[in-house]
Amino acid sequence: MKRIIVAFVALATLLGVQPLSAAEKRQFKYVDATTLTIVNRAQEGGFLLNRIETEKYPQLPGPSMRALRMSTGLAVVFRTNSRVVSARWTNVPRRYGNNMTPILQRGLDLYVDVEGRWVFAGVGRPSSREDVTKHSYTIVDNMAEGEHLCLLYLPMWSELTSLEIGVEEGASIVAAPSPFKHKVVVVGSSITHGASATRSGMCYVSRLNRSLGVDMPNIGISGRCKLDDYFADIICDTKADAFLFDAFSNPTAEQIDERLYGFVAKIRKAHPETPLIFMQTGARETGNLDLVRHERSTTVREAAARGMAKVCKDFKNVYFINPGLDTGADQDGTIDGAHPSDLGFDRALKIVEPKIRKILKKHGIK
Amino acid sequence: MKRIIVAFVALATLLGVQPLSAAEKRQFKYVDATTLTIVNRAQEGGFLLNRIETEKYPQLPGPSMRALRMSTGLAVVFRTNSRVVSARWTNVPRRYGNNMTPILQRGLDLYVDVEGRWVFAGVGRPSSREDVTKHSYTIVDNMAEGEHLCLLYLPMWSELTSLEIGVEEGASIVAAPSPFKHKVVVVGSSITHGASATRSGMCYVSRLNRSLGVDMPNIGISGRCKLDDYFADIICDTKADAFLFDAFSNPTAEQIDERLYGFVAKIRKAHPETPLIFMQTGARETGNLDLVRHERSTTVREAAARGMAKVCKDFKNVYFINPGLDTGADQDGTIDGAHPSDLGFDRALKIVEPKIRKILKKHGIK
Repeated sequence: MKRIIVAFVALATLLGVQPLSAAEKRQFKYVDATTLTIVNRAQEGGFLLNRIETEKYPQLPGPSMRALRMSTGLAVVFRTNSRVVSARWTNVPRRYGNNMTPILQRGLDLYVDVEGRWVFAGVGRPSSREDVTKHSYTIVDNMAEGEHLCLLYLPMWSELTSLEIGVEEGASIVAAPSPFKHKVVVVGSSITHGASATRSGMCYVSRLNRSLGVDMPNIGISGRCKLDDYFADIICDTKADAFLFDAFSNPTAEQIDERLYGFVAKIRKAHPETPLIFMQTGARETGNLDLVRHERSTTVREAAARGMAKVCKDFKNVYFINPGLDTGADQDGTIDGAHPSDLGFDRALKIVEPKIRKILKKHGIK
Repeated sequence: MKRIIVAFVALATLLGVQPLSAAEKRQFKYVDATTLTIVNRAQEGGFLLNRIETEKYPQLPGPSMRALRMSTGLAVVFRTNSRVVSARWTNVPRRYGNNMTPILQRGLDLYVDVEGRWVFAGVGRPSSREDVTKHSYTIVDNMAEGEHLCLLYLPMWSELTSLEIGVEEGASIVAAPSPFKHKVVVVGSSITHGASATRSGMCYVSRLNRSLGVDMPNIGISGRCKLDDYFADIICDTKADAFLFDAFSNPTAEQIDERLYGFVAKIRKAHPETPLIFMQTGARETGNLDLVRHERSTTVREAAARGMAKVCKDFKNVYFINPGLDTGADQDGTIDGAHPSDLGFDRALKIVEPKIRKILKKHGIK
């Protein structure tokens, strides 16, 4: 990578590439992102910047309905020979959460293919003012000449009404075919929803999307995913090569005891063979000192282990990764005791990624 | 740790500790934090919730003046036998940055001593609304009976006008002597200022504060620390056992060439023997694809290495840690290409902490 950059710099110097002055009025050609390729959508249909067409699920509670219209996990794939990638976008008004950055909640996160690896190129910064919903930002500038394959993650916690990608006047920008062959749909809580990564590409789902090279729709909903019927309904309707579950972060031990078996049975009816991979939830660090929360976290994890033992025995192709989404023994892997930081996600991935990879490989998914 | 928690839970069950219902009106006894022990202050004097008494430095530019009145790096140390720790606090109005969480910028971050190790206990969440400057939050609840030694980090990016710690009516809360014997003052850029850790205890300076067990005043100022005279003035006035510098993140290569030698010479005059430890800045990930930024980052790092070679030769007890604040070869260690996430800080610490520890040990500082 270092050698490539050095080569680029040498080439740029030869070609006389110069930075454009900040004062210079930039003119971009904008294209509607929905005319390009949108990856990581669970289902077809509906407005392409919504992760699910919520009109199909009138049984959804209001907050889940709103959450599923967010662009969580979605990414735009395109090729351009522009040296600059810019964007302008608009979101539906929403309060900022205090345990997440505005960049995660409303910003964009760009990766460029460099010799088969997705390399972070830059973020699209939204306004940090809550009441401003129209944004415009130059994500990367002064790239080397030539064509770039780009993967642009959309905001994790916003419903977008528009997104346009800007390139230099005269440059090309075209939809690229999805680089992902198989599809693994991820279902879960606020942790899967991305809290509290710094930017949308750093949520564990987005990181797996790039590292495994599979399409990874994100159906994480903050405060939800308690093995509810309506989650099962969405999963039953969704075609995938495998499903990955963060299903034990929000339900109580009693809910797990009552609901897990039926939840799996319902999904199995719709998808008789599809691998279902459940990840144990991490020990809540809010229980480091709080005895009540510690006890609650322990009984939930026990219920999950107990329930999964039975489920794995009774159903084929069901897996339980335990330990699962653990954020580290030093108890410094979350922002608030519950939501992993980039550090916590990194640690959880060190545990779960090799196991997920092995299961997918066994089923010919990669 | 796990065994201790299990023991606590068993004890709590025996003693019939029950969670208080959310609806129950909690009555706390509040004490003014400035009557407790404030650690990590660079100098004596002034309002205890400001990290520096800025009136002493009329030569400071306005933004640096405001930044040095923030509570960045400060922590309150106290003992309490309360099972609950709450807080209420007020900040001077300020815009939120889009690359940081409100919890980092205005929140509190509590650690409790468990058998000699500082264990994360909980955060004090501020309002996520920019225009709300009065906050109140229960940071931890349901702790085991007995006395707890607490270390409460203050907001990284706010000037506080008041801070009160709340404990249960009838519980004791007293100032604890500082647990830190030696003092290492850290001087730097926005990276040292804490961007973009998730909470104030996760900035690399706060992490070193706990892991090295030394008082660590934080004089990081966003966008500043370009080897300026006024930074040297503050350092000359400040007594410390060592100084640690993140001095190459903001100046240009030309500024380093022009200013570094004189900067060190000026400090050396005031502190003839004190160890001065400079850390190389990380390669900017904004330069992953942007050839101009890549080139700029490279020339800055080269100027730093060149300048430090001369400085280390001419002055005694000057050290250069190179590589220094690097955030990882996968280029996923920052939020925006410049500011380390908790993951980036973790990686940087893996490089610099053993080296800092070795230098401090050599000088009898620990």
